Amino acid sequence: MAGPKEAEGPLKKTFDKTLEDMYYGEKTWEKAEQKIFQETLELAINKASLTSDKIDYLLAGDLSNQIIATNFTARNLGIPFLGLYGACSTLYESLILGSMLIDGGYARYVLVGASSHYATAERQFRFPIEQGVQRAMSAQWTVTGAGAIVLAAQGEGPRITHATVGRVIDFGEGDASDMGAAMAPAAADTLLRHLSDTGRTTADYSLIASGDLGKYGRELVVRLAEEQAVKLSDTYVDCGVLVFDESQDTHAGGSGCACSAVVTCGYILNGMKEGWIKTFLGIGTGALLSPCSCQQGETIPGIAHAVALEN
Amino acid sequence: MAGPKEAEGPLKKTFDKTLEDMYYGEKTWEKAEQKIFQETLELAINKASLTSDKIDYLLAGDLSNQIIATNFTARNLGIPFLGLYGACSTLYESLILGSMLIDGGYARYVLVGASSHYATAERQFRFPIEQGVQRAMSAQWTVTGAGAIVLAAQGEGPRITHATVGRVIDFGEGDASDMGAAMAPAAADTLLRHLSDTGRTTADYSLIASGDLGKYGRELVVRLAEEQAVKLSDTYVDCGVLVFDESQDTHAGGSGCACSAVVTCGYILNGMKEGWIKTFLGIGTGALLSPCSCQQGETIPGIAHAVALEN
Repeated sequence: MAGPKEAEGPLKKTFDKTLEDMYYGEKTWEKAEQKIFQETLELAINKASLTSDKIDYLLAGDLSNQIIATNFTARNLGIPFLGLYGACSTLYESLILGSMLIDGGYARYVLVGASSHYATAERQFRFPIEQGVQRAMSAQWTVTGAGAIVLAAQGEGPRITHATVGRVIDFGEGDASDMGAAMAPAAADTLLRHLSDTGRTTADYSLIASGDLGKYGRELVVRLAEEQAVKLSDTYVDCGVLVFDESQDTHAGGSGCACSAVVTCGYILNGMKEGWIKTFLGIGTGALLSPCSCQQGETIPGIAHAVALEN
Repeated sequence: MAGPKEAEGPLKKTFDKTLEDMYYGEKTWEKAEQKIFQETLELAINKASLTSDKIDYLLAGDLSNQIIATNFTARNLGIPFLGLYGACSTLYESLILGSMLIDGGYARYVLVGASSHYATAERQFRFPIEQGVQRAMSAQWTVTGAGAIVLAAQGEGPRITHATVGRVIDFGEGDASDMGAAMAPAAADTLLRHLSDTGRTTADYSLIASGDLGKYGRELVVRLAEEQAVKLSDTYVDCGVLVFDESQDTHAGGSGCACSAVVTCGYILNGMKEGWIKTFLGIGTGALLSPCSCQQGETIPGIAHAVALEN
């Protein structure tokens, strides 16, 4: 599911449902986010021809303080729930944990997902949007929406074959309007460790996508990889670059938990179904800041979790 | 590790290290919490005679917005990191996920932990402590400290034999000064499901402890269990009741991620080592609120995760 701005972007046809406004019939943006997330999770259960009582665990998270969008969604679904916080990397964190639980024999079905909302994130992390603060050219636009996936021990669809859990990496970036730069070193670290651990090369993947680095962050990953003699070509894309186009005035691109979530669950999984993506490496990226840590003079560390999906 | 107030309480001798003040040499309480958490995790690694490069994953979380105490700790440790948010149930959430990853063959060593700090929690969730707001008699006192455990595929110490993942339960409690009442229904739900799923009775455990219900919340669990014909005796305790005594003016008892963490990692694990606890059922409890959700008129749902430890 995606918001009205995302519905005007290049990926509009890949979403199951799009919204006409940011409130979605609710009184507050926070309640709207919860409603979007809940409908998305329910839609995933329906599309898998399951009912919620068949799901062993829900692994999910979002950007809001104390992940309230997710908590209240979990309350309404009633599925045993393990809350995650990986900032914008949360969908990929949930894919890793969920697939390990299934492969370890602890679950038959795990529902994973993540959500974000432009207006709830802006007022929590930056400024009230009513204030009309001018955005830096390096800033990104938090995607409104949610994505969800049912992981199963067997069935249709691509398999999760490999995963690389991220380390928290900090190159000293402290500008909350340039999060792509803050997260790029973590994305490069995870990508390089993934290739080294698996003995694979970038050519083994039809497509590699980072979560929400935006156009400047993506360029940094290309440079950091090149320094380690790994060449990234046009088969390396970023979900934040894909989700909006230049005319939409989002500056460096999309961000937020929903950025990698709506692109992975729509564009990428559709591409795997259609067959033009055979092997996919997704690298969910997250900036581990809070307004409090920034105000106390901290830099912005990043994290990135990689998951390989194969037909 | 525990703070100065905890060091004056009945469990003072069970902590590895206690602090003399709440700042612990740092400029802010948030930085103090991070330092406490980091030292606790390092101490756990040392006590297990390991080094951080031997740890496959760090699974941890705390109460602060965007779990910054944990993120910055993870940055300094460099261990592949999966961030969790289960409010005050986080240690138990991490024990469940960590033990499943090990048993599934995905890790040899998993480091788990959780932290909280009275002063960071008060100003984030309630009032700045400088304001001197009078506390309700049902209110609890956030424990300052952190607990950590190294989970291993083999070795000394008790085994995790069973776990029951919590569902989010909401009986409509909306008073943020009475979180024990908000969490008690979730604790009872998890306890009853645990007994039903395993075919065990309360007599199978030398000790059952909930995480941070305080004295009123504990009484509610006893009543809710009794309604389902399950009798809880004096072998059912609450970490929040154990950690402070009546003279310390904490009202209903302790709370926070560190409440179940410092009691489990100290008093409980010591008791298992000494042999007077042979079988233990811990039920980590969490209140899934944020200041924003309360201000928007939401009630306070709870969650509880149960873990059985056996010698």
